[in-house]
Amino acid sequence: MNRLPVCQTLLLELHNGVLHVTLNRPESRNAMSLQMVAELRGLLASVREDQAIRALVIGGAGGHFCAGGDIKDMANARTQGPEGFRELNRAFGALLQEVQHAPQVVITVLQGAVLGGGLGLACVSDVALADHQAQFGLPETSLGVLPAQIAPFVVQRIGLTQARRLALTAARFDGTQARQIGLVHFVEHDAQALAERLDEVLAHVLRCAPGANALTKRLLLASAGQPTDALLDEAAQWFSDAVTGPEGVEGTMAFVQKRKPGWAL
Amino acid sequence: MNRLPVCQTLLLELHNGVLHVTLNRPESRNAMSLQMVAELRGLLASVREDQAIRALVIGGAGGHFCAGGDIKDMANARTQGPEGFRELNRAFGALLQEVQHAPQVVITVLQGAVLGGGLGLACVSDVALADHQAQFGLPETSLGVLPAQIAPFVVQRIGLTQARRLALTAARFDGTQARQIGLVHFVEHDAQALAERLDEVLAHVLRCAPGANALTKRLLLASAGQPTDALLDEAAQWFSDAVTGPEGVEGTMAFVQKRKPGWAL
Amino acid sequence: MNRLPVCQTLLLELHNGVLHVTLNRPESRNAMSLQMVAELRGLLASVREDQAIRALVIGGAGGHFCAGGDIKDMANARTQGPEGFRELNRAFGALLQEVQHAPQVVITVLQGAVLGGGLGLACVSDVALADHQAQFGLPETSLGVLPAQIAPFVVQRIGLTQARRLALTAARFDGTQARQIGLVHFVEHDAQALAERLDEVLAHVLRCAPGANALTKRLLLASAGQPTDALLDEAAQWFSDAVTGPEGVEGTMAFVQKRKPGWAL
Repeated sequence: MNRLPVCQTLLLELHNGVLHVTLNRPESRNAMSLQMVAELRGLLASVREDQAIRALVIGGAGGHFCAGGDIKDMANARTQGPEGFRELNRAFGALLQEVQHAPQVVITVLQGAVLGGGLGLACVSDVALADHQAQFGLPETSLGVLPAQIAPFVVQRIGLTQARRLALTAARFDGTQARQIGLVHFVEHDAQALAERLDEVLAHVLRCAPGANALTKRLLLASAGQPTDALLDEAAQWFSDAVTGPEGVEGTMAFVQKRKPGWAL
Repeated sequence: MNRLPVCQTLLLELHNGVLHVTLNRPESRNAMSLQMVAELRGLLASVREDQAIRALVIGGAGGHFCAGGDIKDMANARTQGPEGFRELNRAFGALLQEVQHAPQVVITVLQGAVLGGGLGLACVSDVALADHQAQFGLPETSLGVLPAQIAPFVVQRIGLTQARRLALTAARFDGTQARQIGLVHFVEHDAQALAERLDEVLAHVLRCAPGANALTKRLLLASAGQPTDALLDEAAQWFSDAVTGPEGVEGTMAFVQKRKPGWAL
Repeated sequence: MNRLPVCQTLLLELHNGVLHVTLNRPESRNAMSLQMVAELRGLLASVREDQAIRALVIGGAGGHFCAGGDIKDMANARTQGPEGFRELNRAFGALLQEVQHAPQVVITVLQGAVLGGGLGLACVSDVALADHQAQFGLPETSLGVLPAQIAPFVVQRIGLTQARRLALTAARFDGTQARQIGLVHFVEHDAQALAERLDEVLAHVLRCAPGANALTKRLLLASAGQPTDALLDEAAQWFSDAVTGPEGVEGTMAFVQKRKPGWAL
């Protein structure tokens, strides 16, 4: 087995063939910073060939899963112009592709904020468990930007019909509704019940042969209409255009100034 | 802003960035005549570039949404032979494609009859609200014809599994079941509750930036396996063959003569 | 009308335009032997052009639908090496493709074991009725092998989100859950209720014109992203590799020796 990489934004614990990964930036509700994206991608690459690791469990510290992109990175990217935004955006899409195609079974445990990129991460897990009070949503267009790398995975997860309503209204929804629309598999009423459900799911995963599971996962993903590189590349360009255009500027400024943006009637 | 076109089969009301479109042929439960198809297509084209119009709300006059295709147009097409049927059919598919790709958020309010082409129109809306007593169904094959332009959008809306049962059994279902199979997003118990839900959805839409929403909608549609022109062209040919073949003739005659068709055991 | 073929593993009864097919190997819970696969394929071919047969109803003898592949065939294939496994596997996928594309309306009645290939067969039916106590599952990877020909049809039936959890955890679920995830259309509480539901569905099917229904079914299937020959060919190769590899050997031996396989922690 490889040594696990040292990470600043992630807590790692390997136990009984299962790698528990905790997004650990509780001061910002585990907002997905560029560093966190890079560390997650490095982690996935380092365990990719490690057949002793049969499942990845991804959760968040401090009662939240992930509140989306990081505001500070967005501000830094703005100083670099459109190219910076395109790269920042596309890197997150690459992370989602890599989680999607991890040979291990990926389980997400969803509490508190599951917004924007956090929701995208939930959409590429093999099994998703949610607290009934978790808060899901795609707030992007209410901020003048796009869920550019996320939308294709949301469509694949819950279908076009549900995705279009959620993305075009920025509606919030809870864990119970997330199960109703098929985004998560299980919804539980407290941390104890979540932990017990996780144990049950892991017991089921561990009775399955790891090589057969990895091949079956490849087959399932090959069977589904998949978000393509070409689509995600184009979407990153659209994101960059939106965030540097008038709506993106106004949305960001309104957010910082704690006022409504101009388009909100 | 452009002047709105003058329409004979539609009532139009523009209010606060929202264009309310009412299908207005209550004497035939708003059956989709060729004229109505042409007027809807013209309306969509005229508002396509109008960024002041941020949502389209489509409903029906007289307690019904839309009972499907118009019998008189079908009778007229019969005098023109197969080519007439193919064109009539394909024009409706083109309307569905244009509603699907409208840059505005499209909301349908579904009451009474939502049959055949009416169901197809519901399937291309971003948010669909239904009265619990609305009557949905795909009666085409019970009349010896095909839901030729509609079926691809039904599959995209609710998936193959539900679509095949509904299309191959001509089963009727109500608003509550329409929500269970994912055809609509909300089901309400009376007109007052429908109006309140519409207000809520519109408030959510209007807090989203219109340009970001239009691009996100394009991205969502590009992410989904989509009904292609080639498929819809072929389906129009199949429709023409079916309606001019023995089943189509028998089905239409039986309908007019208020008797069961020969194949109904 | 053609004479129906003589079958050893199937009971056939033709009544009122409906062909009732009963999988009849109750001693092995109707496990899908090579002979049964061949007889089903021959039957489908023989009725394909027979317009007097408008629906196929597939059920199982002895209180079970189908428990999956047949152990004895697997043992025989092992003596023939990888090529034998690939052919055995691919033949089952061909059966699923042929049921999927049968011009008749195909109805499955699901009781008892609906496992592996049995679940695959349910996934290609136009209408599926289940007993609430039926036991569904994809146990393949817990035996070190893949649901190679089945997985693409499961993804098409219930979507990637549900398919990945079920295939990667080998979880069992009952008829009520099968309806919740959209695998079946109706769930009933006893044999009497199942029979009444079947009568209702058949009455609906028989009011639809047979030619229009067959064309509509082709259109629906052409609208959906479909399991391709190329994918199923590749999957058969993967199956052969898995079953002849260490996990497949260990899984089969553990099953025969009634012990846990080495990977089950």
